[in-house]
Amino acid sequence: MEIKVVKDILSVNDQMAERNRAVFEAKGLSVINIMSSPGSGKTSLILETVRRLKGKVGMAVVEGDISSSIDAEKISQEQVPVVQINTGGECHLDAGMINRALDSLPLDDIRLLLIENVGNLVCPGEFNLGESKKVLILSVPEGDDKVYKYPLMFSIADLVLVNKVDLLAYTRFDVERLTGAVRAINQRAEVLRVSCTTGEGIDDWVSWVQANLGL
Amino acid sequence: MEIKVVKDILSVNDQMAERNRAVFEAKGLSVINIMSSPGSGKTSLILETVRRLKGKVGMAVVEGDISSSIDAEKISQEQVPVVQINTGGECHLDAGMINRALDSLPLDDIRLLLIENVGNLVCPGEFNLGESKKVLILSVPEGDDKVYKYPLMFSIADLVLVNKVDLLAYTRFDVERLTGAVRAINQRAEVLRVSCTTGEGIDDWVSWVQANLGL
Repeated sequence: MEIKVVKDILSVNDQMAERNRAVFEAKGLSVINIMSSPGSGKTSLILETVRRLKGKVGMAVVEGDISSSIDAEKISQEQVPVVQINTGGECHLDAGMINRALDSLPLDDIRLLLIENVGNLVCPGEFNLGESKKVLILSVPEGDDKVYKYPLMFSIADLVLVNKVDLLAYTRFDVERLTGAVRAINQRAEVLRVSCTTGEGIDDWVSWVQANLGL
Repeated sequence: MEIKVVKDILSVNDQMAERNRAVFEAKGLSVINIMSSPGSGKTSLILETVRRLKGKVGMAVVEGDISSSIDAEKISQEQVPVVQINTGGECHLDAGMINRALDSLPLDDIRLLLIENVGNLVCPGEFNLGESKKVLILSVPEGDDKVYKYPLMFSIADLVLVNKVDLLAYTRFDVERLTGAVRAINQRAEVLRVSCTTGEGIDDWVSWVQANLGL
């Protein structure tokens, strides 16, 4: 019976995700759902992306957190529209939360919407938001064995960003080993190395966004 | 209605947690529930603890992961009893999973049980296991702002371990700022600095275990 309830919730979410997708397509809007563990660098990546693309592409950001508006405040300093969703305990964003957030965004003025999901390598993977692409960040200090432990998230990603590569020298993280593990369960996802601290690889990431989202 | 279902599940879990607690007390067993984000160092901390206390205290380990048995294999090399729980998608351990695992452990021969929860800074906080103490690990690369974003986990912790302090020099993490944020919502928890890589602070952690669990 519990499984039935979970299935019902997921089915309701998928219907709402399809409604979001219809809105995004009608408005010509590309949407990226950025997921990772807590502290892997989602906000930093969004900041770098906004700094490089604003002025070229109309952008907005949705920040998902259980509580606080720390991240939205950081983003708003870059003068792009941002909506903070506080899930109030929920461990993931769902399509209904995104649908309600759309009312607060200038949809006619933007072509790219970046969504920062709640920091969690498990639950956000189960909830489609209607996004164009799912981007997964794994940071170097988390270790290169995470594919085996959190396979769903790695299997659904369109792109895996290995962030904090400036810390590679101080850890035993092996990017080749990680890439091999991703390949074994996901032939589609590219793996890119980035550092939001040094800026390494950010150009490649921005190029990926432009190429894969038709911007 | 959804809220009702969640409440029912949590209530069932609390009942099972009380049953576990009764078993632990009857057997004179101290139990630590170790929680953190993915890759913060739960397994490394358990390995360090086992290496220092085995021979002095009868120990066993329960490893919780969505899938794989990588961590249990590492622990078993230390010649302590270990049970791997694969949650099969569930984002946390619950009291029922622990109850079933007890059948596979030599309860009469151990005084300390270390439980590694699923890597997740949200959901495990909602599920009591019947444990004696909840220990939360936050690793330096995750950033010192996590208390505001994941307040439940920090509010229920009996101890916060700041792990990977060997990386402090390469980040903007401020242990004092973190400690202040913890203090604001949790006056009970101590905050200790450790590095499972260099061994710094591990003696203090082991002393905490011995003092707080009466070992």
